[in-house]
Amino acid sequence: MAITKRADDYSQWYLDLIFQAGLAENSAVRGCMVIKPTGFALWEKMQAALDRMFKETGHVNAYFPLFIPKSFLAKEEQMAEGFAKECAVVTHYRLKAIPGQGVIVDPEAKLEEELIVRPTSETIIWNTYKNWIQSWRDLPLLINQWANVVRWEMRTRLFLRTAEFLWQEGHTAHATASEAEEETRRMVEVYRQFAEEYLAMPVLVGPKSEGQKFPGAIYTLCIEAMMQDGKALQAGTSHFLGQNFAKAFDVQFTNAQGQREYAWATSWGVSTRLIGGLIMTHSDDLGLVLPPRVAPLHVVIVPIFRKEDEKLAVYEAAHTLAKSIREHPRSAWLNYEPITVKVDDREQHQPGWKFADWELKGVPIRIELGPKDLEKKTCVIARRDIPGKEGKQMGIPLEGAAQYIADLLPQIQRALFDKAKKFRDAHLRTANTYDEFKQMIEEPGFIWAHWDGQRQTEELIAAETKATIRCIPFDRPIEQGKCMVTGAPSHGRVIFARAY
Amino acid sequence: MAITKRADDYSQWYLDLIFQAGLAENSAVRGCMVIKPTGFALWEKMQAALDRMFKETGHVNAYFPLFIPKSFLAKEEQMAEGFAKECAVVTHYRLKAIPGQGVIVDPEAKLEEELIVRPTSETIIWNTYKNWIQSWRDLPLLINQWANVVRWEMRTRLFLRTAEFLWQEGHTAHATASEAEEETRRMVEVYRQFAEEYLAMPVLVGPKSEGQKFPGAIYTLCIEAMMQDGKALQAGTSHFLGQNFAKAFDVQFTNAQGQREYAWATSWGVSTRLIGGLIMTHSDDLGLVLPPRVAPLHVVIVPIFRKEDEKLAVYEAAHTLAKSIREHPRSAWLNYEPITVKVDDREQHQPGWKFADWELKGVPIRIELGPKDLEKKTCVIARRDIPGKEGKQMGIPLEGAAQYIADLLPQIQRALFDKAKKFRDAHLRTANTYDEFKQMIEEPGFIWAHWDGQRQTEELIAAETKATIRCIPFDRPIEQGKCMVTGAPSHGRVIFARAY
Repeated sequence: MAITKRADDYSQWYLDLIFQAGLAENSAVRGCMVIKPTGFALWEKMQAALDRMFKETGHVNAYFPLFIPKSFLAKEEQMAEGFAKECAVVTHYRLKAIPGQGVIVDPEAKLEEELIVRPTSETIIWNTYKNWIQSWRDLPLLINQWANVVRWEMRTRLFLRTAEFLWQEGHTAHATASEAEEETRRMVEVYRQFAEEYLAMPVLVGPKSEGQKFPGAIYTLCIEAMMQDGKALQAGTSHFLGQNFAKAFDVQFTNAQGQREYAWATSWGVSTRLIGGLIMTHSDDLGLVLPPRVAPLHVVIVPIFRKEDEKLAVYEAAHTLAKSIREHPRSAWLNYEPITVKVDDREQHQPGWKFADWELKGVPIRIELGPKDLEKKTCVIARRDIPGKEGKQMGIPLEGAAQYIADLLPQIQRALFDKAKKFRDAHLRTANTYDEFKQMIEEPGFIWAHWDGQRQTEELIAAETKATIRCIPFDRPIEQGKCMVTGAPSHGRVIFARAY
Repeated sequence: MAITKRADDYSQWYLDLIFQAGLAENSAVRGCMVIKPTGFALWEKMQAALDRMFKETGHVNAYFPLFIPKSFLAKEEQMAEGFAKECAVVTHYRLKAIPGQGVIVDPEAKLEEELIVRPTSETIIWNTYKNWIQSWRDLPLLINQWANVVRWEMRTRLFLRTAEFLWQEGHTAHATASEAEEETRRMVEVYRQFAEEYLAMPVLVGPKSEGQKFPGAIYTLCIEAMMQDGKALQAGTSHFLGQNFAKAFDVQFTNAQGQREYAWATSWGVSTRLIGGLIMTHSDDLGLVLPPRVAPLHVVIVPIFRKEDEKLAVYEAAHTLAKSIREHPRSAWLNYEPITVKVDDREQHQPGWKFADWELKGVPIRIELGPKDLEKKTCVIARRDIPGKEGKQMGIPLEGAAQYIADLLPQIQRALFDKAKKFRDAHLRTANTYDEFKQMIEEPGFIWAHWDGQRQTEELIAAETKATIRCIPFDRPIEQGKCMVTGAPSHGRVIFARAY
């Protein structure tokens, strides 16, 4: 089955690709997805890289309860507004099997206080930190959690917006505001580095507007990516929470001068939504395209033969080649993991079918190996990121093939980033008037525009154009101007877009 | 603070140790624990080793929904009986913030069908497999999931029995009964190997009795360990599920002969309960004792000095030594991970305090390094598993210290296993009459006894003695005898014990 072309129906292309590449599917539970093995292997690669980066920046992992007492959500005012809405609520703790009638909820097993399935864990974690933080010597507390969370979304889309999703949430406590702000900035930089260097996904980095920040944060920093349809994807956020949660849960410590103070907080997270972002950044009408640093499988070897007597020699050469690639010296670039290779020995399929299948699944490099290649002691190497003849190199000597591949993988990684960045930059435009903006927003891409910094102006623009402020990039040019809507002064343009 | 001695109060010792070593604590949510960074690091080591073993046996990871529709639990009769009891039930999907009154459950947001927080995932997974399995070519399906699960336990104990816990659950589908049975056996063997070779925890391996098997299984294989108080801990189970779930969820495939058949199933799991088992197998009155293969930190170096002018030289030597240990050639035995070392540079504490602190935390090797050692270019190496002078080696040359430690770690691992096995074997006794059994069961340990294979006999024994059949070991001697209760014939003894 071919997948829908992006130009014909972008949304359907996305769903077709996920389904046919076997990444995920909807489950029997409304809004909850099943992450299939191929999709989960991608998440494992992302997790491993992120986890290493978190540990290198001094963080440790821990695990906090899935459930949050209902009253906790009401303790931090903004949280109650922002999150105490679409939540899964546990009200009972027992079922009763009634013979012939099935299973019913036991009315006698009602909880005194309802429990919420965590939509995010600030409240339960800060309630715990209360007991962990007594003195400045207990700070900073640099903790991360890998977990599932639930937000009862009404309109879901695989990976991008699901009722349950997987993520990591960092929750740190600090003795001073400046240390916490430094951490907030450090973690958005970790996310930028991960997005750009692992996912090959260029991002804009900077604060969100007041209207778009996390409820309960003083400010939110984000990485924001552009998808191939020109829409924005918020790919990661890092929040400076000030003392809001410390005050809500009474987390005080004795500072070096012996005075009691509230602790300063940050939180930061990325989720399985990144898989959706990865797909929509690089993939094409043939299927998935994966950057080598997060590809679970780097190389597939497709043996080609017509006659039974050619088969043995071709397979033998394929396995010898696979071994030489696997045993190639490991590199820091792949975090000292081996290059992964598979010999496609499915006998029921023809080579052409296999080529298309591996293209669908996004394996970065395909090697074709047949009797004619063997005669010349060479092979054919095809790049997934450049489909067709253009990305095919004939006559690569088998002896040097492992080195060739070790060199090619970083080239592919860079080419994907460069291509995505070129696309992104080509779709970053500038609007000087609101009329111009309203026309431009109907075309794919982000728009630089002047804004007066007022929440109500942003809300008006969103109501009229469905575009929101995605990011106020750290590296935006300083430029005096006037808000395109109100004419009030502005000190620099911000990024508007329609978003996922 | 000293911890309670095992001899004085074993339960309190266990809780004191967990609290003081910083492994876990109870949370604000009844029955749910917080796994603290030190405890979670242990779980990460276990996960990494198990995950590698699962992948080496051909399994892949995936992720299925947290929620299960209530009706699913009723589909498999035994499951409904066994699990549809103490479950967290989600009935609503929205809260409402009422100004001044806090947050209430929105009565208008009631779910049509209640959702259960997964107590185990056979039902939702087999409902999914229905779409994945069409032909014998789709089999076997060898999938594992790392997840949190919830069982509403009334009496909880940290790690051993908590309402929410972390685990892995393997769910495989096969074309034939014999393949599924082979898998059931393969996975209990993986668990045995993990328990014995990583946790240094000797286990008995074999089927459970009918009365103790998993609801919905044809039979359950288990690994069963003895704790230091002589009680049994079920440490891992592997279930042959027959076609029960395939029939309940109508999972049929076309076999090679073109006929439709129901698929054959297994499931298998281990959980954070293993951390409790690890603690109760090796730890002592000084604190945690960790086998090197799952210890997050292998070596701690405690610098010793009196005068400020000694400090610099001692620290320099300590860091040089740490570097040489970290850079020592990696071994397959530690899965090519480096030996981990920390120099304890906390200035507010004396060496004696630090020794006790690292003993409490279970670090396998402590190195003491002071000015006198430096003069002789040696150091002192102390083993955690042999506290006091007996486990201390003086005068180890600094130059050879890394190699000495690389050799010592496997020795410690083996010593811990041998010690635990000696203890276990010394507490494996044999009862020939029920009177003898009733006396013996008041003492710590397992009892070999003859049993007639009847469920009602097992239930009677449990009611009268609180002992259950823990395991029918694969390697039990064939021995004709008579059931100690009924006098009916028995073909071999089984293992009885009181259990966690």
